[in-house]
Parts: sequence; C-alpha cells; structure tokens
Amino acid sequence: MNGAQALMETLKRSGVSVCFANPGTSEMHMVRALDEGDGIRAVLALFEGVATGAADGFARMTGRPAATILHLGPGLANGLANLHNARRASSPVVNLVGDHPDYHQGFDAPLTSDIATLAKPMSCWVGRPSSAADLPRKGAEAAAAALAPPGGVATLVVPADCAWTENVTPSDPVRVPKRAVPDGAQIDKALGAIRKAKKIAFLLSGHALSERALYDAARAAKAVDAALYVELFSARVARGAGRVTPLRMPYFPEQIVQALNGVDCLVLAGARAPVAFFAYPNTPSELTPKGAEVVTLAAPQDDCEAALAMLAEALGAPPTADVAERKTPVLMDGALTPESAATAIARFLPENAIVSDESATSGLNLWPLLANAAPHDLLSLTGGSIGQGLPLAVGAAVACPERKVVCLHGDGGAMYTLQALWTMAREKLDVTTVIWSNRSYRILGVELMRAGATNPGPTAMGLVGLDNPPLDWTQLAKGMGVNAASCNNARSFAAAFESAMSKRGPMLIEAIV
Amino acid sequence: MNGAQALMETLKRSGVSVCFANPGTSEMHMVRALDEGDGIRAVLALFEGVATGAADGFARMTGRPAATILHLGPGLANGLANLHNARRASSPVVNLVGDHPDYHQGFDAPLTSDIATLAKPMSCWVGRPSSAADLPRKGAEAAAAALAPPGGVATLVVPADCAWTENVTPSDPVRVPKRAVPDGAQIDKALGAIRKAKKIAFLLSGHALSERALYDAARAAKAVDAALYVELFSARVARGAGRVTPLRMPYFPEQIVQALNGVDCLVLAGARAPVAFFAYPNTPSELTPKGAEVVTLAAPQDDCEAALAMLAEALGAPPTADVAERKTPVLMDGALTPESAATAIARFLPENAIVSDESATSGLNLWPLLANAAPHDLLSLTGGSIGQGLPLAVGAAVACPERKVVCLHGDGGAMYTLQALWTMAREKLDVTTVIWSNRSYRILGVELMRAGATNPGPTAMGLVGLDNPPLDWTQLAKGMGVNAASCNNARSFAAAFESAMSKRGPMLIEAIV
Repeated sequence: MNGAQALMETLKRSGVSVCFANPGTSEMHMVRALDEGDGIRAVLALFEGVATGAADGFARMTGRPAATILHLGPGLANGLANLHNARRASSPVVNLVGDHPDYHQGFDAPLTSDIATLAKPMSCWVGRPSSAADLPRKGAEAAAAALAPPGGVATLVVPADCAWTENVTPSDPVRVPKRAVPDGAQIDKALGAIRKAKKIAFLLSGHALSERALYDAARAAKAVDAALYVELFSARVARGAGRVTPLRMPYFPEQIVQALNGVDCLVLAGARAPVAFFAYPNTPSELTPKGAEVVTLAAPQDDCEAALAMLAEALGAPPTADVAERKTPVLMDGALTPESAATAIARFLPENAIVSDESATSGLNLWPLLANAAPHDLLSLTGGSIGQGLPLAVGAAVACPERKVVCLHGDGGAMYTLQALWTMAREKLDVTTVIWSNRSYRILGVELMRAGATNPGPTAMGLVGLDNPPLDWTQLAKGMGVNAASCNNARSFAAAFESAMSKRGPMLIEAIV
Repeated sequence: MNGAQALMETLKRSGVSVCFANPGTSEMHMVRALDEGDGIRAVLALFEGVATGAADGFARMTGRPAATILHLGPGLANGLANLHNARRASSPVVNLVGDHPDYHQGFDAPLTSDIATLAKPMSCWVGRPSSAADLPRKGAEAAAAALAPPGGVATLVVPADCAWTENVTPSDPVRVPKRAVPDGAQIDKALGAIRKAKKIAFLLSGHALSERALYDAARAAKAVDAALYVELFSARVARGAGRVTPLRMPYFPEQIVQALNGVDCLVLAGARAPVAFFAYPNTPSELTPKGAEVVTLAAPQDDCEAALAMLAEALGAPPTADVAERKTPVLMDGALTPESAATAIARFLPENAIVSDESATSGLNLWPLLANAAPHDLLSLTGGSIGQGLPLAVGAAVACPERKVVCLHGDGGAMYTLQALWTMAREKLDVTTVIWSNRSYRILGVELMRAGATNPGPTAMGLVGLDNPPLDWTQLAKGMGVNAASCNNARSFAAAFESAMSKRGPMLIEAIV
C-alpha cells in the first residue's frame, strides 16, 4: 500500500473513524485511500472551518478524534478559528494537511507557505514525516498526542510524495496515558483549604461536567455549603431534569467579581481561576477575590470525576444531591422574543438531545429554562471565535446519529460558517437550527457603550448592524438544500420548533427577534 | 485624541482611505475612531476572508493599501487565505488586528493566541507597539512596509489599551522607496543574453503587465522574434482591443515544458522562472529548459515599465507593436456551455470593465475570447487559495465606483467567501457575478485521474462532487440581498448578461454548465 493508505490504516487502528474533508490537489492520494476498505467515513465540507468545527463536535460527543483533510497552508488557515475553539475545548482532533514534497518547497510555488508555523498557535503537536516510511508512525503519534489528556489539536503535515510512495507499512497505535487519579495528598490539600474557609465556591469545567461528576460535586458542595459554579463557556455539560443545576459564571468581569464577593476559598476541578474575557480600562483581569485561597482539586488533564467523588467521600457528603425537576413551561403569546422562543425550546426539546449553543445575546433565557427541560448535553462556544455552532452541530450529529441535535445560533456568528448547512443536507443529519435573527452584532452594540460610545455615530453603528440589507435565512438554507421556515411570533415559532422535534433530518428556523 | 484616533489619522496621512472591517470587542475603540472626521471609509464584511480579499482588490486597482480590522488571532486566521493570495499578488495591505493589552496576555483568556506567529507566514512586516504613544509610529511603518516595492502585507497588532489611552499624537508618513529603474549594466546583460540566443521567450508578471509595459515588451519581442508570455495567474493585466495579446503560460507542468521547448534564453520582467504549481511523481518542479540562460531584466520590485522601454530602445525595436482588434463574437445557441457563456461575456463586456476571474476549469475559453473584447483589466487568483474572486470584486468596485466589475467564479471556490455578496448589496457595488455552476470541484476530478485513479470509487468521487444536494445560487444571492437569475441555455445567459451590463448595482447570474 502507499503512504496515504498506510496512514489511513494507522489512523483507523488508532481509533479514528471519521474524516471531515475539504481536500485539494495535494491531498488526492489521501482521498483515494479513503475509497478503500471498510475504513474511515469521509464527510465533505465546503469550507475548512466547517471541517475543523465538525471534528470538535465529534470529539466532544465521543472522546475520540476525527481527522480533517485540509489543503496546504491556506486550507489550514481557514480551519484555524475553529481549531482555536477546539483547543479551548480540549477536544482531540487530528488535522491532515497536505503539502508539497520537500524537494518542491524551495521553488516557492504559489501555494507554498509555512504550514508548521501556522499550525503551532492552535496545536499541541505538529509533525511532518521525514519520509514515506515515517508517515504512518507520525500519524500514530498525532492520534496519541490528540488523545493525551485533556485532549488537544494535533496537526500532521503530509507531503504529497510521502502519500504517493508505494510499499509503506502501517503503524500500530502509540500508547496514550490515562487521566491521573488524584492522590490522597491532593484531596487532603483541598480538604484543608475548605475546612478553614468561611465562604467556599467550586468552579468546574471540562471533565468535571459529566452527569456523574456534577452530582458528586453537588454532594460535596452541599456538605460544606459551597456555591457550585461551572465555567460560562464549557465544551459539554450534562443538563436538564434529573441532573444537578449548578450556577453559571457570568460574562462581564464586574459581574464575576460580584458573584465571588466574599469567597475565601475557590476549589477548581477541570477549570482555571476566573479571568476577564476581555480587558477594560477600569476592571481587573484576575477575578478571584483578593486573599482567597485557590486550590486545584483536579487539573484539566486529571480524572476530575474521580477527584470529585473522592472529595465528596472525604467530606462525608450526603449520598444524594438535589436534581432538577422536569417542568413544562407554558408557551407565551405575542411577538417572538428570545424569552418566548427559549420557552418553546425548553418545552419541546426531546429526551437526550444535543444542544449546540452559540446564541450570544439572544441566549440569556436558555440557561435557566433548560435546567428543567428533558435531559440533554449542552455544547458552548469555548474559545470566543464565533462561527462554531453550526459545524459543531454537524460533528455531533455524525457522532450520535440517534440523537436530535439542536443548534441555536446568533445570525452574525452563523454567517461565518453557513456552509455547514450544506453538509447537514448532504449527510441528512438530524439537526434543527434556530437562527436568532436580530440583524446585528448585538454584543458589539453593548461593547460600544462599554467603550464609552454613549452616542455612537453612523459609521460605528453601521459596523455592528446587519440590517442593511437584512439576511434572509430561509433562502440561505434552501440554497444549500435545507428546508426552512421563518417565524416572527411566539406561537408560530413554537409550532415550527415542535414540528421539527417530531421529524428527522435537517431543518432551519429563522427566529425574527 | 486616543491611540485609535491617532492611528487612524496616521493611516489617513499615509494614504489609507478605506477600511474593510469585521471587528469585535477588542476593536471597539478603532470602530469609534472611524466615526470621526472625514477620514477613512468603513466597509463591513461578514467574514474576515471577505475583508482581506477586498483589501487585495482595492490595492490591485489603486496601488494603495486598504486597512482591514480583524478580531484577534482567530479573526486574523479567517483572513489569512486571502492574505496568502494578496502576498502572491504583491498587493499592499495593512491589517489592524486587535488584541488584549500586554498585562492581560498572561491570563490566557479564551481569545488569547499568538497573533504575531499566525501573521508571519503571510506578512512582509509584523509589528506591535510598545505603548500607546508608539502606536501611530507603528501604523506609519506598517503602511510604508506595505507600500515598499513590490508591495506586501503588513500586520499591526493593536493592544486594546494602546487604542483607548488618551493624549496620543499622530505620526507623519514614513518614506517609501521608489521602484528601482534598472541601470545600463542590467540592460546590457539582458542584451548580451538575447543576442547570443537562438530561441527567446519573455516572461512577464506584476508591474510588467500594464498596458504600457506590455506594449514595449511586445515591441522588444518583435525585434528579436521572441515569444511573449505572461504568468498564468497575474494580479492584474491590461487586456482587450487596442492592447497587445501576449501568450499565457499554461497550467500543467508538462504543458509548460512543451511551450518552452527549445528556448535557450528566458528574459524575466516582474516574473520568476516557471515552476510547477503542484509536484507530480513523474514531472519536474523546475520548468525552464535545461541549459537555457535565465536573465532577470527587472525583478518584481523594480520599475518593470522603464526596464522594458529601455530594452526596446536598446534593441532598436520598431515603434509600434501589434494590438488586438475589437471583435464582436457571434452568440451561440443551445445548452449553456463554458464556451457559449464566454462568447456572450466577450461580446457584452463594457469598456473599461474590471474582470475578477476565478473561473477555474470553466474559464478555458475566456482568455482567447477576451483578447478581442472591449479593453479591460483582468484580475486572477494569484496564490491558488480558492475563494478570492468575490472579495476581490468587492475591493475593486470600492476602488473604482465608475467601472463595471464582472466577477467570474467557479461554484466550489465561491462557497468559501459567499458572504461577499452581502457587502455588494450593502454598498450597492456595481458588480455582476457569474457563478459557473458545474456542481463539482471539477479540477479535482482531473487531478484524481492524474493521481492514477482511473476508476475512482464512490467516496473519492463524493469528495469532489457538489451535486448532492445541488447549490441554488439564486437563493443564496437573494438571501444576502443580491438580485439573481439562473440560466441553462446560451440565449438566456446572453440576455441576462447583456441586461446586467446595461444596469448598475449588484447582480448574480447562475450559469448552469
């Protein structure tokens, strides 16, 4: 077999079962290799940011890396924004980036660029084989690097000649370390800090957001009357009826300062101490209360589930925690608002759904309402680079074909990677997308005011407005083969959403709010 | 004034008149600064690749840099593919990339990334001010770096605190060197090589593709019976009736080898010796005939116009060159094909139009047919990163509001940056877009065969096909506020194109071929 075939066989042995691809000429041998055997499923994306975001969504739902196929430096560049988000989610991803052979590099052909340098800021591992024979081994290393806790983005540059050279042998998987279970000393340290504190807060993220981990965290928090927080933008959190309902860290720094006011012990599991998302002239960057003791019960790469169970045990926590009841909110009437739409979503969301949430300013009502919805997984925008929600939904739907995926997305962000709709149509993915059409970068209107522009001029307002002309999301969706409806009152939205939940396949609802 | 205002005033003094922006929170003070004075025109893009490609188009038509405003590392990343193309076009561009203040960097907030490293591969200059007071000076240096011949991409990272700090003084422009006029020795060297050669070819690109430069090149070529070639993918070339008609370098390496067979002297002006676009197992990378003397009459950063005039003089060339006649091709009947569409385009293209051409495989008939169309400028995909044509058309239309812009685009490539259509609608740009809808990455079908896949399987074919589902470009355009029509026969296309040429404002024609 040739290098490309040996690479795909190696990746298969390493647990890669899906490849989100946007290939070009230099990747043709990899494309051919996907043709063969009962190997890796190939999913075409029409833009690289869709491929990388989909790989992130797949990883969040399976814990396994998907591969991407990207076309040299510019193809990788188009995928970097969602790799940034994947990196912040600690999602395992294996990028296969085609390149010219080494002997062709010096001629500086038009598509030549420094791929390794482009890859570095978003990757935990970057490799390039020294020969075709070395390619499979590098593929196994890439998969292992992606899977090493807490998970990360590995980028393998694949020179075309390494892919086309014959008589290459696949590699066996490289061993991946397990998440470290904290030792007694680590638990004792946390216990010591907790025992001498007056006001305690737990802050969870990553591996600490599973149903089990949250339950044990809630037990421990109950034992010592601690506030239980989760990070605002989490890769995946178990939510809904039957699960515990943690508090969510707010967004603006002054809100976080207020939330943590008086806390003298902050216990971290899978999370880092809170910092401001953006800097502002008169607010701090570090948001932990001065003098508070910060204790890391479990780092992002640790076994946070085990750590929280051990802590609950050590604290003699009660065996049960309070969990959310299932509530069926009463539908609202009148014009569609983010609140009335969220009410309908919470009411009709089916059991075991996956919610890819990039609602931005329109999503404020979702967190409290969805606490009492049917149990589901919530995936958030982890790195702040908008345009992640639609690709994430693609990857989640490929990973979990039996589960309904609901993508809730601001209109501004959705425009970055709207090509994802085409992949949903092509693969007949069971994704219902709700576009919050407020025809603006609403958050930037808020930020303009925070920047002191109490009376912004027409140019500044123009740069945060999407109303001239308005986007027609039903036409955009239909143009890519996805059925769509537009709703501007609460009842019609509820009916459209209820109907979408009762059917399978891709659907888009434009929510005019 | 604050740092952002001083920066904008500095850029204005340095010749920047337009800013293609996709800002976020960290750029709000720059957005506010655009509100003030009679300064820089702000054009909003809904995706960063539109902003950077538009800056490239603006530069190609004016020789001056536009600014872009991009949101931290991920925003820059989304713009890199078209910055790659801009770099290959030697287009001056000034990127303003917002970032966290230095004091906020260490906290690794979600949007933190290594911006300078991301910028480097596509930039000739990367800077970050040491303080707010230093920001304007860095802005002036960025503009000068972008303008230094042959022109390039300069990236200035703008920490938010440098933008918001008050009492900052603007800088005066930094001196930009002029293109070097070749000295007598350089001309003599070329003369010597030409005089002893049996078969001569000229290869032109960049600054050597103006109407004047091409004319003098044709006179010189006529004097010594040389073949006159231009690079296949040129930033901008003067074409049509009344201009000389050079040969165009072919695409595949074996075609170039054949074209240059027997040449023993290759004279370069603004161009580099030909190399293969991609490497293949059995073709060379370097395509200059073995043993041929390669002489650089003028490098890309030199005054190629002056050099070609001097060479013509030194050769005692005839005072006139052959120029193309205006021919009005007869319209074809029947189903729409790339040929019948190209015939209509050549017939109805108005005087002084700008053609942004990313036709890919559908464009084969355009080059010969457009030679005898009304005089126009042709802009090509310089770096091979598809998704450049629509943004380029935006920038060209902003630069030249009195000229009709015609964008000819393959459907696969157009999907990368379709958000450009919205900016065309918003700014009421006079752009007619023709989408070649062949529902495939057709070139990849060819490349699959070249890769030896004479009988590709369903997975490989699926990865080069866009037919399942088909894209409906009229709906995609209308969804973004651009009027659109779909044509599948030669007559209806000709009528739609003729009509679009007689009106102003954005229009899209889907050419089903």
